[in-house]
Amino acid sequence: MARNTQVAADTAAPPITSILARFVAGHASRGWTDAVEHEAHRTFYNWLGCAIGAARHEAADAAIAAVQMLAPAPQASVLGRAEKVDMASAALVNGITSHTFDFDDTHLKTIIHPAGPVASAVLALAEHRGASGRDVIDALVLGIDVACRIGNTMYPDHYDRGWHITGSTGMLGAAAGCARLLRLDEQQAAMALGIAASQPVGLREQFGTMTKPFHPGGAARAGLMSALLASQGFTASPRALEAPRGFVQVASDKRAWNEVTDELGERFEISFNTYKPFACGIVIHPSIDACVQLRDRGVTADQVERIELRVHSLVLELTGKKEPKDGLQGKFSVYHGCAVGLIHGRAGEEEFSDAVVNDPAVVALRNKVRATVDDSVDEASVQVAAVLHDGRRVEVQVEHAIGSLENPLSDAQLEAKFADLVVPVLGGTRSRDITAQWRGLAAMADVRALTALCRP
Amino acid sequence: MARNTQVAADTAAPPITSILARFVAGHASRGWTDAVEHEAHRTFYNWLGCAIGAARHEAADAAIAAVQMLAPAPQASVLGRAEKVDMASAALVNGITSHTFDFDDTHLKTIIHPAGPVASAVLALAEHRGASGRDVIDALVLGIDVACRIGNTMYPDHYDRGWHITGSTGMLGAAAGCARLLRLDEQQAAMALGIAASQPVGLREQFGTMTKPFHPGGAARAGLMSALLASQGFTASPRALEAPRGFVQVASDKRAWNEVTDELGERFEISFNTYKPFACGIVIHPSIDACVQLRDRGVTADQVERIELRVHSLVLELTGKKEPKDGLQGKFSVYHGCAVGLIHGRAGEEEFSDAVVNDPAVVALRNKVRATVDDSVDEASVQVAAVLHDGRRVEVQVEHAIGSLENPLSDAQLEAKFADLVVPVLGGTRSRDITAQWRGLAAMADVRALTALCRP
Repeated sequence: MARNTQVAADTAAPPITSILARFVAGHASRGWTDAVEHEAHRTFYNWLGCAIGAARHEAADAAIAAVQMLAPAPQASVLGRAEKVDMASAALVNGITSHTFDFDDTHLKTIIHPAGPVASAVLALAEHRGASGRDVIDALVLGIDVACRIGNTMYPDHYDRGWHITGSTGMLGAAAGCARLLRLDEQQAAMALGIAASQPVGLREQFGTMTKPFHPGGAARAGLMSALLASQGFTASPRALEAPRGFVQVASDKRAWNEVTDELGERFEISFNTYKPFACGIVIHPSIDACVQLRDRGVTADQVERIELRVHSLVLELTGKKEPKDGLQGKFSVYHGCAVGLIHGRAGEEEFSDAVVNDPAVVALRNKVRATVDDSVDEASVQVAAVLHDGRRVEVQVEHAIGSLENPLSDAQLEAKFADLVVPVLGGTRSRDITAQWRGLAAMADVRALTALCRP
Repeated sequence: MARNTQVAADTAAPPITSILARFVAGHASRGWTDAVEHEAHRTFYNWLGCAIGAARHEAADAAIAAVQMLAPAPQASVLGRAEKVDMASAALVNGITSHTFDFDDTHLKTIIHPAGPVASAVLALAEHRGASGRDVIDALVLGIDVACRIGNTMYPDHYDRGWHITGSTGMLGAAAGCARLLRLDEQQAAMALGIAASQPVGLREQFGTMTKPFHPGGAARAGLMSALLASQGFTASPRALEAPRGFVQVASDKRAWNEVTDELGERFEISFNTYKPFACGIVIHPSIDACVQLRDRGVTADQVERIELRVHSLVLELTGKKEPKDGLQGKFSVYHGCAVGLIHGRAGEEEFSDAVVNDPAVVALRNKVRATVDDSVDEASVQVAAVLHDGRRVEVQVEHAIGSLENPLSDAQLEAKFADLVVPVLGGTRSRDITAQWRGLAAMADVRALTALCRP
């Protein structure tokens, strides 16, 4: 695996730290289209469901136990749990849980999961301060814009080197969002970004361990603290992002500075955010989608002789596990994904439980799935055919899977996903209460009206 | 400024995360020579003086004000101040103050300042738990060994890329030290190192701002939290340091794995730690030392016609400021350093105050200093001649300045440095009380007997 040649230092980089600070401090409240405003609400709501859904995961238990060793003050909610902790620790834990199921939002241009670091920091700070929903949405849009624009500047080189880009740009998004919420001026916002620049969190080597979801949590915490430090006069380099020994040049050979400046304040990166319908890697989504469509067309498991997939080679490279033994392995098996898609018509966290992965009916159908590599098929597409015992052949072609930018989840589908995640943790009433409110977040006078609903 | 070519991934790296975890968890208490044991005490004592000395600096004020926004529990002392905060925040703040004056210890092979991240984390945890001095010294020696060995593995490439190596290896040293203090087993210690590996803190672009000393503080905090998380079952990759997408390969092209394994448990990197006598960059130290020697030989400012220096070009490149206007600029002026060396016989934090930098007598002597570049003179050396009004010429040649590994500060000189730093903050009695105890730290049943002396 050879890497790129490291390029020479760029001493003439534009002052992106200052540019972003001015943007974060000065852009008008709700200074964007209705579509952006709506996408911000969808991003927040999807993130909230993911965080609540994983609240009882063992990663959450371990993180909270460690945080409790600091005897934290009860400033902000751990979403989905009874505990309150200090706002920085709440940012950490909620950032962890929001990414634990790998079911959170994805900015596909960079594969950043932006809400994890940004929303986790912003909501914890907002809850402690009793901020308005308007301020939260403003901070979320601006914070995500900062993280994703820095991501665009460095992607793919930065990711290829081994950085888990969600946590290694997320600290900047969290700092930006919190700077906005604290109403820091341009100078202080630059300091917040500068302090955060020294604290990237995340290595791809951690994938498959609890430290993967730690990355957005750690980034949320680092960004929030950076903004608090800046608010108290702590200083950093005003060129911390762009200088030759600043973050971008240290961590990436690709430095497309124009990604920061192009259409800044006009195009918002949150517009390109997507939400997963299935609780597994994005590369299996077309195959699951296709099998759900087979089910919708009346195909049942007992009719099936075999299922034939034509997929890009990457699909089998990443998710070619033929005989998964537990839920986690199931997430790396396109065969399992197809089986639950056809049998259950869905692939939420429940369908990646140990029980479902070892269910004889699922195992039997999984063994009937044959995958053929065909690199003329796009990575985001699939061709599926069900060959039935009666000789019929039912074909489905998926160009863009449900949940992609071209074929996004509807609000109703987002609500169904939210309920799947939240009902087992908080019960149906609470799940419905929150769902009744998500569209109105920006009009909420105090976000504590919402966070109060997020604890049992 | 061209950089190195980034090299291919090394898929056959030795399991250094596991090797270091076994070492940290399993090495015998006081499993080293008397010389190492004594150096550990010197390292700790020097660090303590630096942290107390900067306790009232505006960087400390800003950091504490931000930490107070979390309403922290009073678990551990902010050295030199009345406040107690949670142990993670104490690690952060004490790490900041210990590096604020740039007067702390230096592992010259890597220019890591190792006590900042390691001692700050270890003492905060130890104070909260009422640990013994023996446990603190063990944790300090092992933690510094981990940070500096990882530093040796990556230096100089990692530093050349722009990482401030103190904070980008320090989180590993802090995690190792805290893992030891918590008596984590080998598996948990590996997780602690793994969690810490995702959290390097530090960019060289921050030099000259408060975020420079933030780096050891942030690293101390990150390492301490990593050990707490591991103690609660949080997981990370057991190859987080050495894997192709692990920390070392992501952050450096130099990967001298043998630096981790060679003589592990026999040679201790703390043996190579040094302590600055002068409160400025190491490159001016030989010139100041020489002028102090001129003073010791009876030369006084009013006798001086001129002072001639022969120095390596690097000295003027980094510290060639002819007319410094304030204390901070004074630290970048070899001319000022020579003047205070001859007039005051020292160059502590006081001699880099605005008042001394603008003192007419100092200014007058500074203007009589002439520097000539001569690259046949080593960077660590200087040739100085004082030409007097009566025509005499007094020459001093410094091969290795006081404070270097070859010419270390004596214990008495360390004690004088400590008093210079601590008396203005805690007063003479407290300074003497602590000094009466530092050699006996390892025999202390509970380190709170010491930390109680470190607050006013």
